This record gives sequence, C-alpha cells and structure tokens, in this order.
Amino acid sequence: MVAPPGGIGNMIGKREFPLAQVYRLLEPGPVVLVSTTRGGRASIMPMSWHTMMEFVPPLVGCVISNRNHTFAVLRATGECAINVPTVELARKVVACGNVSGQQIDKFKTFKLTPVAGEVVQCPLIAECYANLECKVADRSLVAQYNFFILEVVKAWTDPRRKRPRTMHHQGEGEFLVPGRIIHLPSPKTSLLTT
Amino acid sequence: MVAPPGGIGNMIGKREFPLAQVYRLLEPGPVVLVSTTRGGRASIMPMSWHTMMEFVPPLVGCVISNRNHTFAVLRATGECAINVPTVELARKVVACGNVSGQQIDKFKTFKLTPVAGEVVQCPLIAECYANLECKVADRSLVAQYNFFILEVVKAWTDPRRKRPRTMHHQGEGEFLVPGRIIHLPSPKTSLLTT
Repeated sequence: MVAPPGGIGNMIGKREFPLAQVYRLLEPGPVVLVSTTRGGRASIMPMSWHTMMEFVPPLVGCVISNRNHTFAVLRATGECAINVPTVELARKVVACGNVSGQQIDKFKTFKLTPVAGEVVQCPLIAECYANLECKVADRSLVAQYNFFILEVVKAWTDPRRKRPRTMHHQGEGEFLVPGRIIHLPSPKTSLLTT
Repeated sequence: MVAPPGGIGNMIGKREFPLAQVYRLLEPGPVVLVSTTRGGRASIMPMSWHTMMEFVPPLVGCVISNRNHTFAVLRATGECAINVPTVELARKVVACGNVSGQQIDKFKTFKLTPVAGEVVQCPLIAECYANLECKVADRSLVAQYNFFILEVVKAWTDPRRKRPRTMHHQGEGEFLVPGRIIHLPSPKTSLLTT
C-alpha cells in the first residue's frame, strides 16, 4: 500500500468532491469497485447492486453476497471505498469479478494502484475517476439480505475528467456505456418527487 | 383505468418477461416511473434511488420520500408498478416529477395510458417498454430511511424494443442516455463476486 504524501489530491491529481453532490456519481447506476483491506491484505470487488439512500450525509445501500471475500472483510472492519471506474478499465473490472481476493492480490495482478484513504484505512483505486471513502452505518439488513448501508465520509474526483464514460451492467457480460447527455432543467434538484 | 381483454400482453403488444431476468432491466440504473392507485385515483412518480436485492424472487429496494404522495399510497396499499421509460418519454418523466399526484391526474395530464396489472391493482404505463408488478415485501426500513423492499411478482416487456434507450439521472436536469454496448463475456452470470 502506498501512503500519499500530502493526501490523495496531491498524489494523483484528484480533488475533494462535495459530499452533498455524491449522489450525482452513483445515481445513474454505474458499476463500481469496492475496495477493502484486512491484515495488510487488500481486495477489490465489482458491484452493481447499490442505491443512494440519503443526500447529506450521503448514504449508500448495497448488496454484497455473503459468499464473497469482501462481505467478510467489510463486516469485520466496517470500512470500504467505492471507486467508480470508466470503460477504459472494463477488462480489469470484469477480471476482478472472476477471482476471489482470498486467492490473489488483485491490485498487483490487475496492475491497479492503491492509494491510502484520508479517513478510512482501506486503499482507494487511483485509476478510477471517483473514490468514495465509506464507513458502515447500518447493519440491520445484513443478516437477511446481505444489505449494508454505508456513509460516505470523504469523496474525491478527478477534475480533468469532464465526461467520464461509466459502465452500466445489464447482465450476461453486457455493459451500457453512456452516449449523449440530455438536459431537461427542472425546478426541483431531485427526481424523488410527486 | 382500462382493463385489458386477455391481459396486458394482448392489449399492447407486450410479453411476459422471466422473473429471473428482471435484474437485467434495473441493474444498469435507469430512471423508472412508479405507478400507484388508491380510491380510484392513480398516480406516477419518477424514481432513481433503487437497487436489485435478490435475483429470485426478484427483490427491489427503493427510497421514496415521505413527502411524496406515492409514499402514502404505497404504504397504504402495499402495491405499485415499476415502469421503465425510454428517452422518447423524457419530457413526460420530468414533468411527472414536478407536480404532486394529489393535485392532478398525471395519466390524463401527460397523456400516458393506464393498463390494468394482472396481479396488482395499480395501473401499468403502456408507453414504457417494461412493466414490473410489485408488492411491498419488507417495511422494516420504511420509518427510518423511507426504504421499501418490493417483490416483483409479474414482469412484462415489449419484445419489439431491441435496444431500449433508458434514461440515467445524474442530477441537476442531466440524464445519461446509453450509447454503445460492450460485451465482455464472463464465466459468472453476475458481477456480485470476489
């Protein structure tokens, strides 16, 4: 693990991102990479089953199968990072999903760069355009549904990436990649309205 | 409300969709329209804060603000439909989010066609390419997070729509629309692995 001198921002060109805007990164539904660490051993898991649950503080609900190495580590440590990859990383994202972190070091094997978080102990993935440092906030549905509620405590994005092309999993090896953006200004910030 | 002779499939060209495949409709993170009804009055609400929680039976977790008309109706009736619109409906989707169902009949105002569900009482939206009939399966996080867990009990899609261009909300009036699809076959069906 590499400890950045002066924080992740200095090290890899990222800037702190306002917590109240975090929903903009996750609401469109991208595949994310969940990174964790325990006992000096880091791991990475792709995840698509997540949703925003609150704007401020930003809460994210997500399902992580209890058959996965990440489930046990997250439950034990209470910390993870949500890293948002773009399509340039597609093969690595899929590769991360096809082998267990119990068997190999995915950072090394897939040539991804770990960067220490500022608040959490687990490594952020430098190559991802956004990184969210998270702590488990609510475990009440973990036993029944493998559903964790995470609080995002620090967020980083790469300001040089103006139109990050995220990946959106639709099953059976297919990913949608965003094409155009449409603008439909609305008097309300959120769509969660009626 | 229009009751279809012979089911929604006969009426509007849709076919039943296998429940085990429902995750493929929601996992990429599209904006959906939640339709409900109570006392002969139907309503529609756009929603982006949802996630799959189980493959079979398909469970969907979603946040619906308790300030919304839909919240009260869903809690009272225990039923809704999740309708997946495409970009052709973008202006209607946004319009549905900017007025309360307590004030107007959104089906009439926005010229959307209600079709009776086969299992649930609430109307499905004919113009949407997919329709999921849902029942509330778990209310344990409703009080604290406005988080409902729904079971999809019947699903319909339009087989003529081969590449539905869904809308993915990223806040402040911006929607990503899928461009290309990339195929990265994986030995595992789901990405929920490590």
